Amino acid sequence: MDKKLVKVLDTTLRDGSQTASISFTLNDKIRIALYLDKIGIDFIEGGWPSSNPKDYEFFRKIKEYSLRSKVAAFGSTRRKDTKAEKDPTLNSILESDVDTAVIFGKSWILHVTDVLRVSKEDNLNLITESIEYLKQHGLYVIFDAEHFYQGFLDSADYAMQVIKAAEEAKADVIALADTNGGTTPDKIYDITSYVVKQTNVEIGLHMHNDIGCGVANTLMGVLAGARHVQGTINGIGERTGNADLIQIIPTLVLKFGFKVLKDINSLKELKPLSRLVYELSGVSPNPFQPYVGDNAFAHKAGVHADAVIKNHRAYEHVDPESVGNSRKILISEVAGSANLVNYLERLGINIDKKDPRLKSILQKIKDLENHGYSFDIAPASAALIALKDLGLYEKVFDVEYWKVINENGLALALVKVNSYLEASEGVGPVNAIDLAIRKALQNIFPDISKIKLIDYRVVLPGEIKNTESVVRVTIEFTDGEKQWKTIGVSRSVIEASIEALVSGFDYYIQISKKLKPLVV
Amino acid sequence: MDKKLVKVLDTTLRDGSQTASISFTLNDKIRIALYLDKIGIDFIEGGWPSSNPKDYEFFRKIKEYSLRSKVAAFGSTRRKDTKAEKDPTLNSILESDVDTAVIFGKSWILHVTDVLRVSKEDNLNLITESIEYLKQHGLYVIFDAEHFYQGFLDSADYAMQVIKAAEEAKADVIALADTNGGTTPDKIYDITSYVVKQTNVEIGLHMHNDIGCGVANTLMGVLAGARHVQGTINGIGERTGNADLIQIIPTLVLKFGFKVLKDINSLKELKPLSRLVYELSGVSPNPFQPYVGDNAFAHKAGVHADAVIKNHRAYEHVDPESVGNSRKILISEVAGSANLVNYLERLGINIDKKDPRLKSILQKIKDLENHGYSFDIAPASAALIALKDLGLYEKVFDVEYWKVINENGLALALVKVNSYLEASEGVGPVNAIDLAIRKALQNIFPDISKIKLIDYRVVLPGEIKNTESVVRVTIEFTDGEKQWKTIGVSRSVIEASIEALVSGFDYYIQISKKLKPLVV
Repeated sequence: MDKKLVKVLDTTLRDGSQTASISFTLNDKIRIALYLDKIGIDFIEGGWPSSNPKDYEFFRKIKEYSLRSKVAAFGSTRRKDTKAEKDPTLNSILESDVDTAVIFGKSWILHVTDVLRVSKEDNLNLITESIEYLKQHGLYVIFDAEHFYQGFLDSADYAMQVIKAAEEAKADVIALADTNGGTTPDKIYDITSYVVKQTNVEIGLHMHNDIGCGVANTLMGVLAGARHVQGTINGIGERTGNADLIQIIPTLVLKFGFKVLKDINSLKELKPLSRLVYELSGVSPNPFQPYVGDNAFAHKAGVHADAVIKNHRAYEHVDPESVGNSRKILISEVAGSANLVNYLERLGINIDKKDPRLKSILQKIKDLENHGYSFDIAPASAALIALKDLGLYEKVFDVEYWKVINENGLALALVKVNSYLEASEGVGPVNAIDLAIRKALQNIFPDISKIKLIDYRVVLPGEIKNTESVVRVTIEFTDGEKQWKTIGVSRSVIEASIEALVSGFDYYIQISKKLKPLVV
Repeated sequence: MDKKLVKVLDTTLRDGSQTASISFTLNDKIRIALYLDKIGIDFIEGGWPSSNPKDYEFFRKIKEYSLRSKVAAFGSTRRKDTKAEKDPTLNSILESDVDTAVIFGKSWILHVTDVLRVSKEDNLNLITESIEYLKQHGLYVIFDAEHFYQGFLDSADYAMQVIKAAEEAKADVIALADTNGGTTPDKIYDITSYVVKQTNVEIGLHMHNDIGCGVANTLMGVLAGARHVQGTINGIGERTGNADLIQIIPTLVLKFGFKVLKDINSLKELKPLSRLVYELSGVSPNPFQPYVGDNAFAHKAGVHADAVIKNHRAYEHVDPESVGNSRKILISEVAGSANLVNYLERLGINIDKKDPRLKSILQKIKDLENHGYSFDIAPASAALIALKDLGLYEKVFDVEYWKVINENGLALALVKVNSYLEASEGVGPVNAIDLAIRKALQNIFPDISKIKLIDYRVVLPGEIKNTESVVRVTIEFTDGEKQWKTIGVSRSVIEASIEALVSGFDYYIQISKKLKPLVV
């Protein structure tokens, strides 16, 4: 076995879905699993079938894709009052029809006596029988020793009896869990080293972040000899969360030279993967997140930035590109223009950094941001402002009139775009307006039908004034190739939505000037 | 000297104010300093007078309060081309009229030659002369050895020459800085231990979080013998931030038994202090922050809630009260009866854990969460489901009919609630409906006017189907005392908003049954 190889089990879809305020749909889970497979995660813990009906569906659906990653179902050791073959949890794992099982058992006497309420001996038996039962059915079995470190500090003797029982039952991996997340890195190292020496089975780690050491504890456990690490993307999970794989993986590879994932280029996928999970979690990305956060390689202008330009090692612990991130010089007036020039270049518009119009564009952006806009999340809307100031904007259509009628379950929209009056019925007012505007735009821009919405969000950015508050709507569009985001701000969610919708269509038309002769 | 005593230097006002997007006013700085003093922080690094003139004001103003904490001014060693007594930076520290100075110098050859561009010998001289100059003026001098760990790994010999020079110049504390934040906890421990053995001066630590180990690295450094720690509140700072004192302090006290702060009760002040700094930073509190986050002691999974209620040590590494936090039991698809029983108890409803109705309530919650609901963020909506199943729900009002008309800038709503037909105009459709329903409810429940909306959010929880997607609306209400959150899910943002609004009013009426005789 290659001593430099570390296997990764991702439990974003199981432990991660136990995060307060996070609830993944089946489709979310599939999207995440496919990305985890893409970067070469070894094990994807898909769910806890006996506790959550949605998870059966996941295991059934994921079979339609031929993943390289092993898909694992999670559960506990058998109940104290049933035989393994009659145990609903163990059988739910078999019914999930996966090749890998992760089951947790108790290794802390307090849990055996106070929570499970069985004798120490019986606890060992149900661990043995549960593992043996799953092994008999040909599964690869990962045993999570819950509360192992606290258990060891309480009674090393009993905690080791649990490990021995799991080893003798032929568990393929024994993962030591710091379930309460309160163990310090020094103890993690010492205890893990001891277990590695005392066993002949692959040792894994399952850390939580309750004292802010989830990442460090995992690193220390690997240095102590563990070669299987469990965690979640962005560290989501119960309470303060699990160890964050987004932070652990690059350190294992770049600082210690371990082999993790498919290849070193997979590290570049960590930022998009992190963003996907944030998006589906409904949590906004943490700009301070190590390696992938927007500020992770942000430098102040002046001397500090000079130093980085002279030698990037001066203030960067790794090359930002190596983890799919990039260097950022913080916004000053100049840095602002530079960002804008850079963005316009990517739209094929070359403009001199000294062009005075850049200042006026930045001024407009600042003013609008004072009124609830936020262009860093909606660059397409910023582009429209820039195009107008630069005289590169060609007015193509105008929503001259609109009306929406909502009535128990019914939503009707009436719009007049250029000369075209169109009406549509939708499942909701935004949908109705969307359909009516598309109908009208078909006449001047047939390609409009290619455009789909990928995301739609509404938040209250500003001061709270009851339902009178200003709402900020952001919409993400795609034509199947490109993606772009626009923003609308108004005290009416309908008007803000219309602004974002119209900007989205307008941006696409302006950029891909594939216009029929205008009727206006 | 007491080996169990660890001194703390807070640099929230200096390193923390160099965070992207954070800028403190003078008044903010005073408020933070007073709170730091209140909990007994040893050193408050108030600013960098030579780089930021407005910091002089802080040092002048803070003198009006008689703090127990030492106030420190920050700066660098003298410039290569001036004498110490002529150096503007060193003199700016003297002009700040503080009793403690923190100056940083280079300990990594790469910075000496590539950034500072002086000889290794000259670098040692300017460190010596700068410290001696400040000591001659009677200051307590803390020397920050910038990039020390990288410098040591590059050339241990030169890095130690720097430490020796500072020690011979009689620095009171030598703080070892992991300026790029990329050093791993194992190396921090080894290198710090070596320095502690080689010196007779108090060793301090200044860690950054670029690999997510800012907290762990500080802990490992203290275990290696350092007795002075530097960090910021909430870990704000350059790039990914500094080591978070909010996480470090309780671990030093509760896990290792070190003496930190005024007394153990100061730990209860960490959550309010953390909140104050978030508020003044304009950053929303991180619910996953160890010790003080809203989710730090929140239990979502059924097995966890059940166990914690039996014995809180089961899934809590410390008592939440010890750090001024509290336990939270969440209701969701992964919840068990225990979560629900506990939640209902807090509503004054006592129900046996074995009651079969609990299962049917949880089943309803699971089914609804499969359709885009998320009850852990909207417990009031979960309560309404429970009250209905338990026969404790008394139907008070019914929205029999509603209609909304939107037309360029105009929003009108018509509702029939019980026998009352009411119409309202609003700034947007949700506002119009809100006003119309309130009008109607006034008739049966005058107190409705006390209810205000605190937050309103819309997200797409599910599979993306263009503007036909299901939207999830969450609304937070308050009556001035209590706060509660409800949820609505529909393909129409209007209908989802109405559901959440109506549930919010209904919850308040059900819980505080202050009803006039019903007209229905």
